[in-house]
Amino acid sequence: MCDTCGCGEGRRRTIEVNQDILRANREIALDNRRHLDSTGTIAINLIGSPGSGKTTLLERTIERLGRRFRIGVLEGDIETEIDAERIRKKGAVAVQLTTGGACHLESSLIHRGLHELEGRLDGRRLDILFIENVGNLVCPSFFELGEHLRVVLVSVTEGADKPLKYPKAFRTSSVFVITKADLIPYTDFDIKKATEFALSINPSLETIVTSSRTGDGIDEWVDLLIKARKRTP
Amino acid sequence: MCDTCGCGEGRRRTIEVNQDILRANREIALDNRRHLDSTGTIAINLIGSPGSGKTTLLERTIERLGRRFRIGVLEGDIETEIDAERIRKKGAVAVQLTTGGACHLESSLIHRGLHELEGRLDGRRLDILFIENVGNLVCPSFFELGEHLRVVLVSVTEGADKPLKYPKAFRTSSVFVITKADLIPYTDFDIKKATEFALSINPSLETIVTSSRTGDGIDEWVDLLIKARKRTP
Repeated sequence: MCDTCGCGEGRRRTIEVNQDILRANREIALDNRRHLDSTGTIAINLIGSPGSGKTTLLERTIERLGRRFRIGVLEGDIETEIDAERIRKKGAVAVQLTTGGACHLESSLIHRGLHELEGRLDGRRLDILFIENVGNLVCPSFFELGEHLRVVLVSVTEGADKPLKYPKAFRTSSVFVITKADLIPYTDFDIKKATEFALSINPSLETIVTSSRTGDGIDEWVDLLIKARKRTP
Repeated sequence: MCDTCGCGEGRRRTIEVNQDILRANREIALDNRRHLDSTGTIAINLIGSPGSGKTTLLERTIERLGRRFRIGVLEGDIETEIDAERIRKKGAVAVQLTTGGACHLESSLIHRGLHELEGRLDGRRLDILFIENVGNLVCPSFFELGEHLRVVLVSVTEGADKPLKYPKAFRTSSVFVITKADLIPYTDFDIKKATEFALSINPSLETIVTSSRTGDGIDEWVDLLIKARKRTP
């Protein structure tokens, strides 16, 4: 995490400030969580590199679950409304959160985004809220947003070593979604290795191999979401 | 950039600290640059998402230039020595810089890395220094390291919209390398669009389309490096 991880020396003042930020972030995250629980909404935070397939997985998910559940999406990006527009075309309510430079979402931005989403729902409650974080495998993992489920995505073209290189995202997630499995024949990606590396970081991580292009693994992903929803208050 | 971009409110103290950090970083970057100039070494800072193909492009580059030039590599990662080991196998001198959590390299770490590289060279000078930044398309773009050339990489599987979504990396780079072009037939990547988007952010950006797998574009990339080296003191 940028200047907040305690790397280097002579950074005591920065670390202090950043611990304040993380503490304040956690408090608002707890508020978000209480609010989501009160409306019976499960919140899912998707973390992955730029281009790891987060928005496309959401498109497939909304196609599958959009009639059964009321789905809202908070789309985190540094700039542009591109992703929220893609999601709206699939029929879900979407609010774009542009961070204006920042490399991750924070709970205060989610709080504001929730108000905006609710304003568009005319009193109806969301069943599922997806939060698509800024494309970044590092910084978002430091910030709780109030989510019930954190999911880390890696596409097969990124390589199997990513869990070892970016352990925090894997340590703090419950689900590991491998995306773009249709490209495996054209890469040297090794599912077994990637899964082993991920489990070496977090032994309770559940792994799903998907392709949003062919539909492989989407059943499994959707089932997991439905089960997770049943477990939340 | 994490907590340093001025996003949100009530962050005056953080912004102040971060401006101090950026100022201190720039001063050490200038020192690094002077040192590199004094040894006739051109330094190239590679920025891209996890899995965008930075290390593989370096492997191909060392295969092509390793006999003609003395090449050193500073490998930035949060954890692991995986990438430095890959580079050493190609015959270049490599030092792994692990940031221990931080999402970008800073100039002070480059300073230390340079000392370590030089310690391994027994008085010989480097012709080319590659700095492979931490896999991240956001934070590294805020930190000058003393490089002569900044290069941003995007693989075709990440999508053509990346310049619009991560503009700072494109605004501060001189070269845009599109990687994994061999996968274009299996994606909906549009080279023309990606190039147009990149030029809309930075009209002087030079774009090269490469595939480290087939070798396409590697000639052009290597020529660019040789020309850039001739231009440096």
